[in-house]
Amino acid sequence: MKLHNYHLSSASFRVRIALNLKGLPFTYVSHHLRRAEHRSEAFLRLNPQGLVPALELDDGAVLTQSMAIVEFLDEAHPEPPLLPRDLHGRARVRALAQAIACDIHPINNLRVLQYLETPLGHDQATRDAWYRHWVAAGFDGLERELAGHPATGRFCHGDAPTLADICLVPQVFNAKRFAVDLGPYPTVRRIHGVCLDLPAFADAAPEKQPEAAT
Amino acid sequence: MKLHNYHLSSASFRVRIALNLKGLPFTYVSHHLRRAEHRSEAFLRLNPQGLVPALELDDGAVLTQSMAIVEFLDEAHPEPPLLPRDLHGRARVRALAQAIACDIHPINNLRVLQYLETPLGHDQATRDAWYRHWVAAGFDGLERELAGHPATGRFCHGDAPTLADICLVPQVFNAKRFAVDLGPYPTVRRIHGVCLDLPAFADAAPEKQPEAAT
Repeated sequence: MKLHNYHLSSASFRVRIALNLKGLPFTYVSHHLRRAEHRSEAFLRLNPQGLVPALELDDGAVLTQSMAIVEFLDEAHPEPPLLPRDLHGRARVRALAQAIACDIHPINNLRVLQYLETPLGHDQATRDAWYRHWVAAGFDGLERELAGHPATGRFCHGDAPTLADICLVPQVFNAKRFAVDLGPYPTVRRIHGVCLDLPAFADAAPEKQPEAAT
Repeated sequence: MKLHNYHLSSASFRVRIALNLKGLPFTYVSHHLRRAEHRSEAFLRLNPQGLVPALELDDGAVLTQSMAIVEFLDEAHPEPPLLPRDLHGRARVRALAQAIACDIHPINNLRVLQYLETPLGHDQATRDAWYRHWVAAGFDGLERELAGHPATGRFCHGDAPTLADICLVPQVFNAKRFAVDLGPYPTVRRIHGVCLDLPAFADAAPEKQPEAAT
């Protein structure tokens, strides 16, 4: 398998964690987003949406969208499971993941921040305030949900990592990059710490990837 | 079941379609977003994220996030299936759905457009241009993917509606509201038309819901 990705891409980070949790080896293919390498003709042939991550399987199939890729990996390689067995639990884990992957991350994506700069003309301080606003809006709800729900365990759901933790850790990484105050989110911080004690999470971090050295 | 939703909410529209496709009756509970009814204390107790849709089950459990709800409905009521059986097909359908639900819709959500107005101070024309920019960016990739992939059939994937169509139709509805030129997207338009021939899709449309009459 080849993972087309970028070290700082939060969605790429999710797939790296899932591959590590499943113990699946992969070839790392870097596409530098700030150099627009994901908009090249060659990459658009591979993924018409022109976004990372994309997972190129050994049979030539190309999978896109990080959460769809993680669900595929979970269906193709069921152990260890990344979703609980019971239907309510599965719905909760997917909802937690989507609260991050749909309601926080897309609004703060690089291309959105770039649009705020050009054509909208906003300075760095305004873009940073935008970033923090949407993280806070999302984390406020996430913290209430995690702190108040009996199914929250060592991880977001129970005592093993799931799709929800796979989305949580990259989002906390991003929040720290933009100096978001994580004080109001003790449960988020606690689970983030528990995850990073696992090599599958720690080894997937942006600073451990090949681009970080360049 | 009670569906907490709002007629113009695109994510609510998705869940209405899924409930209709499954033939599941539900009680319609309206939360007027422009009046901020989804931020009330009562609703925050129900859904700490303060977002619609939320599906309140007869056992009292509350499910959130539209795609998680649709996957739950599909697992709890398997017929007719909203995802294909084969793993590659499932990954493709989820990726198409997420290309809309993660990469287009969140950036154009009401609360984001409101932030562009206050505090950022952008006028209606600038907000409309923002809206059209992200729909076009998303639909460009979606059209390439749908037009170029052998698994595209009468619907986004094969000849029966799936989670991908459930996301496509509300997004096209929104695009029309904002006068996006759909000329460049013939496959998107064709599939949208095929879907609307089905009562499950047509009856879920915003103009058919109780708030539309008020």
